[in-house]
Amino acid sequence: MSGAPAPRGLFISLEGIDGSGKSTQARLLAEALRAAGRDPVLTREPGGSPGAEEIRHLLLKGDTGRWSAETECLLFTAARRDHVERTIAPALEAGRPVITDRFADSTRVYQGTTRGDLREMVDALHASAIRLEPDLTLVIDMDPARAHARAHAREEASAGAETRFEAFGLPFQQVLREGFRALAQQFPERCLLIDGDRAPEKVAEDIAALVLQRLAQQ
Amino acid sequence: MSGAPAPRGLFISLEGIDGSGKSTQARLLAEALRAAGRDPVLTREPGGSPGAEEIRHLLLKGDTGRWSAETECLLFTAARRDHVERTIAPALEAGRPVITDRFADSTRVYQGTTRGDLREMVDALHASAIRLEPDLTLVIDMDPARAHARAHAREEASAGAETRFEAFGLPFQQVLREGFRALAQQFPERCLLIDGDRAPEKVAEDIAALVLQRLAQQ
Repeated sequence: MSGAPAPRGLFISLEGIDGSGKSTQARLLAEALRAAGRDPVLTREPGGSPGAEEIRHLLLKGDTGRWSAETECLLFTAARRDHVERTIAPALEAGRPVITDRFADSTRVYQGTTRGDLREMVDALHASAIRLEPDLTLVIDMDPARAHARAHAREEASAGAETRFEAFGLPFQQVLREGFRALAQQFPERCLLIDGDRAPEKVAEDIAALVLQRLAQQ
Repeated sequence: MSGAPAPRGLFISLEGIDGSGKSTQARLLAEALRAAGRDPVLTREPGGSPGAEEIRHLLLKGDTGRWSAETECLLFTAARRDHVERTIAPALEAGRPVITDRFADSTRVYQGTTRGDLREMVDALHASAIRLEPDLTLVIDMDPARAHARAHAREEASAGAETRFEAFGLPFQQVLREGFRALAQQFPERCLLIDGDRAPEKVAEDIAALVLQRLAQQ
């Protein structure tokens, strides 16, 4: 009510193939920000708000052919809208950094890989109903074979990621990796490719340094 | 597999304010078509397919402030996409007439009345994800005070329509009526205003005659 308005929080997304360690890195980044005296919100997609989690549940239950790719896009967009309204935007407005494990780029890359003809619809839905983009997108880039082996060895990946790995196989993950690399080239002003073929602690150090530097510039 | 392809079925929607008798007229029209040897599909929105019914359930349960108007639009569009894919399009492709109690025009008029600023988003979502329009839209036009009185007297309206009448009141229904009239002017090539201030049997006779004439032209 008095004085200058607080600066808007930094909106950070982590993206990459299944098993690339996004969830681990998101958690480690939140810990690093807390250690630096920040108050980050850690969230993820699909889901991230009570309504979005219900839509996620509707998307995941039942047969795989239950929804068409187009209906899935609409449901993902509805969940994302709720996630933005209820979780992301209020935190950013309060000046808190927001770290999300996946955001719109995942829809762009997964749909672009499985149904390239849907990219136009995905973009139109984003332009009509979401509009928000991250300030910084960390694309964790790594060899899918190593990501797969690591996920198996550590049982670190979520059951969902494992299921997708099994269902779609390594060639699909290789195409996805190329999709994420192309995305980083399409949005160079906000995307950074992070070399994920290193020890997770080393990757986390790099990410924390990058983000803390960006926060210091705000 | 041989011969000329069967003509695509006629896609008919019924629209109008709560209590205007849309559901009754949709049922009577289906009966009239069956009596004339046709094999119509009678459906309704929101809902109309198993997936769309689940999305409808998600929309209707819980508090009224549970979803923003924007998220509601996305969920309605997802339900409509499923309804078109699973129920409407297959029937039209098989040459069957489809009669739906509400379609995209209801979203246009209800959202346009309650949140005029959303009309652009509603239109963009329709253009990206639905595209299909009815061949013939019968807009049942009647005095909201009479619609309300009739709904009360006959308990003919659904509980949902009654709840909305109570919640939003007569002035809202008067604005909705104007919205449906404006819509009929916006899409004159497919919309017909039907005088609903008459006995339902008389309204049904007019509608059946109109639709049978249109079917005979196909």
